[in-house]
Amino acid sequence: MADPVVERLALVGIGLIGSSIARAARLSGLARHIAIQTRRPETLARAEELGLGDSYTADPAEAVRDADLVIVCVPVGVSGEVAQAIAPGLKPGAVVSDVGSTKASVIAQMAPHIPQGVHFVPAHPIAGTEHSGPDAGFAELFQNRWCLITPPEGTDADAIALVERFWTGCGANTDIMTPEHHDMVLAITSHVPHLIAYNIVGTAAHLEEVTASEVMKFSAGGFRDFTRIAASDPTMWRDVFLNNREAVLEMLGRFSEDLTALQRAIRWGDGDALFDLFTRTRAIRRGIIEHGQETDAPDFGRTPSAGKPAD
Amino acid sequence: MADPVVERLALVGIGLIGSSIARAARLSGLARHIAIQTRRPETLARAEELGLGDSYTADPAEAVRDADLVIVCVPVGVSGEVAQAIAPGLKPGAVVSDVGSTKASVIAQMAPHIPQGVHFVPAHPIAGTEHSGPDAGFAELFQNRWCLITPPEGTDADAIALVERFWTGCGANTDIMTPEHHDMVLAITSHVPHLIAYNIVGTAAHLEEVTASEVMKFSAGGFRDFTRIAASDPTMWRDVFLNNREAVLEMLGRFSEDLTALQRAIRWGDGDALFDLFTRTRAIRRGIIEHGQETDAPDFGRTPSAGKPAD
Repeated sequence: MADPVVERLALVGIGLIGSSIARAARLSGLARHIAIQTRRPETLARAEELGLGDSYTADPAEAVRDADLVIVCVPVGVSGEVAQAIAPGLKPGAVVSDVGSTKASVIAQMAPHIPQGVHFVPAHPIAGTEHSGPDAGFAELFQNRWCLITPPEGTDADAIALVERFWTGCGANTDIMTPEHHDMVLAITSHVPHLIAYNIVGTAAHLEEVTASEVMKFSAGGFRDFTRIAASDPTMWRDVFLNNREAVLEMLGRFSEDLTALQRAIRWGDGDALFDLFTRTRAIRRGIIEHGQETDAPDFGRTPSAGKPAD
Repeated sequence: MADPVVERLALVGIGLIGSSIARAARLSGLARHIAIQTRRPETLARAEELGLGDSYTADPAEAVRDADLVIVCVPVGVSGEVAQAIAPGLKPGAVVSDVGSTKASVIAQMAPHIPQGVHFVPAHPIAGTEHSGPDAGFAELFQNRWCLITPPEGTDADAIALVERFWTGCGANTDIMTPEHHDMVLAITSHVPHLIAYNIVGTAAHLEEVTASEVMKFSAGGFRDFTRIAASDPTMWRDVFLNNREAVLEMLGRFSEDLTALQRAIRWGDGDALFDLFTRTRAIRRGIIEHGQETDAPDFGRTPSAGKPAD
């Protein structure tokens, strides 16, 4: 095992992402001490039961005391108040990072609270599952995934390097971009896909012509793929949309424009326009598989549940 | 092994679905003889190499001669001409079925060509993967999936029962509904989901602000799920949209209406409306898992490709 990246790591928030970081850091010996903080007593107790860290506290300032690296792992809507809460405990030279899915808004919320002499290096590991909470985390979550680092101009180079080393230690690849570009990239690769998944599941649940039971039973033709991401944490995702409004609305506008063109092609029987699009989209999936971001097994390598259908 | 359901089975078309039927029928001994027909010589040769059947021919009428059960497994847009081509070979009392994803249109195309004394029992197994061709099929494809049977009024009860027995033998569950209801159910559970998956992949591929390479690298946040169904067979899907136009446009209208409401909620910062929807959609996924139509493993139980990313 290599030398630890930091002596003391503090994780503020211990849900799916926080607990996966704790497990990955432990597995790879990235920190000598892992301090864990979360507000809800039952979640903190569960983190301790799971043995995710070395110390546990409900007090944010206490958790980050003497920490070399602090990673804030909370829904982006509360990142400002969390930054304010940890500020009194931060030591000079500490590095504060986060895992939020939106970056410009997180920086606007957190930066004003970061004390002089503390480095702020915002980051976003592009990894997750539809499950949430400390039990849902696992050490391999970041393996071969990308972690985007979006340092404000003038950020200390050593602090950036430390965050990169930490994420590389978790098994991730790192890349650096501006917060604004990050927010645009994620709007199309993550936020709008989640929105339309939530939306179609909502539409399907409220039809008069087709019952919810029929939707569930006959979902293997495509619909069930959408329900996975539409089962993601509601608080996290509400905050994402409220905190990346401009980019989401921009990308959603493009999506709707393109969808209207497809609708028109269907109405007027323009088979060539449909065939042309349906052929081009295959290349993107091949690229994702080549980039190591997807399995090439058919149907995600998924096996049907062993259970018999309920009716 | 049980008694065969039929003496002689003819499969007209031997792609993903046809070849999966051949394998399932062989595995479970559902037919004493499996005759395979497809138009393209290289596909027919491949089917023979794979040993999918007992006899092989490019001639549709020849393939169905003496068959007790004929299953047409072609894109729905050519089902009319295929029905016409097999008609001269059909014996009295034979049962003709199909696997098309649209039913009213398939019936309108095929029924006029079915000779007097031959039974027509349209069906649709709700199963598939994003791969196509005879190599993509596998015997377990229909295991625990639903096969919807949509017999026109007055269809012979024994013929319906035979098709049900055949699909149950393939491991599927069967249900009976009208063609019109089928087309409405599938529009929301399959056709519109495919359309919006194709659409978002198309939108993402044509942005100025975000490169295709970025879309691929950073796709693990949700987008890559959509690329799976957007990699489905273009001919099959073009035909689906052209042949289920009314129901697709109806469901697409609902989807767009709901999406506009979400867009408005984002623009005006209505977090409660977002949170409320995002909470309700979780129940649908739980229902699908309980109905045995989905794995409950996180992230579809998917493991990342072993390959290192390309850059």
